Formats: sequence, C-alpha cells, structure tokens
Amino acid sequence: MKKSVFYHAGCPVCISAEHEILGLMDPSSVEIVHLGEDKSKIQQAENAGVKSVPALVTPTGNVLHINYGASMADVKG
Amino acid sequence: MKKSVFYHAGCPVCISAEHEILGLMDPSSVEIVHLGEDKSKIQQAENAGVKSVPALVTPTGNVLHINYGASMADVKG
Repeated sequence: MKKSVFYHAGCPVCISAEHEILGLMDPSSVEIVHLGEDKSKIQQAENAGVKSVPALVTPTGNVLHINYGASMADVKG
Repeated sequence: MKKSVFYHAGCPVCISAEHEILGLMDPSSVEIVHLGEDKSKIQQAENAGVKSVPALVTPTGNVLHINYGASMADVKG
C-alpha cells in the first residue's frame, strides 16, 4: 500500500499534530518528513501541493493542510 | 474507545476531506457530524474548539482543522 506522507517542520504545533495523526492512523502507513532537518525534501513537498505545514499527503495524492488548534502555550513553547 | 468526531458542513471540499479521512482511519472510530443538517450540534462543535470546518476532534480533545488543498473545480462545484 502506498504510504501517506506527513510533512512538518519541527515546531511544537507540528509535533502535537504528528502525535495526534499517528494516534489516529496506523503508524506504519505514514512516512514522517521533517522539512527542517531534510531540506532536500522541500521541493518534493511543494511538488505534492503542500502549502503549509503540518500537512498530510494521502496515498491518493490529496493534501490535507492541518491547522491545529494550538494553545498559546504551545505556540510560545 | 472514545471516537473522533469529524465535523463538516456538506460543501464539496468537506466531502472530499471526509472521504480522505475515512480512507486513512478506521471508519468505525470516527463519528461524522454534518452541521448543516444538524444545527443543534453547532454549539457542541464550538465547545470542542472547532473554529472552521472540516475539522476533526480527536479522542484526546484536540482539534485538527483541516484546510484541504481543494481544486477550484471543487470550490465551484
């Protein structure tokens, strides 16, 4: 099965969203890409249609941009 | 297990996101609420922290606001 790809950039909001996503989906079905640590993947993400992070690119090629309802504490963290 | 709740309002973008979410997660673990058809649930959604639709409220109480990268055709549809 083709995997989903979760792109993030290491911010606290992204990490929270990652934990939520991995808790909801089968973790083995998701590839996690940290764009801050692997800048070579940025072009790949853009080509997939990613406009913001965190975002989940599904096996069908659709992009779900996730705007996590973060607390201010998360944002400041 | 506590279910996630997917709130939407019946727009084409919401429906696309719903199909993606149900394809990625175990459908039996998600309750779908159509706020356009069940306006009594709007207060419940607001209390859960939902600011926009589509949104997924996770069993842990976090809200993932999903900004689906919709095509213009979807928006016009």
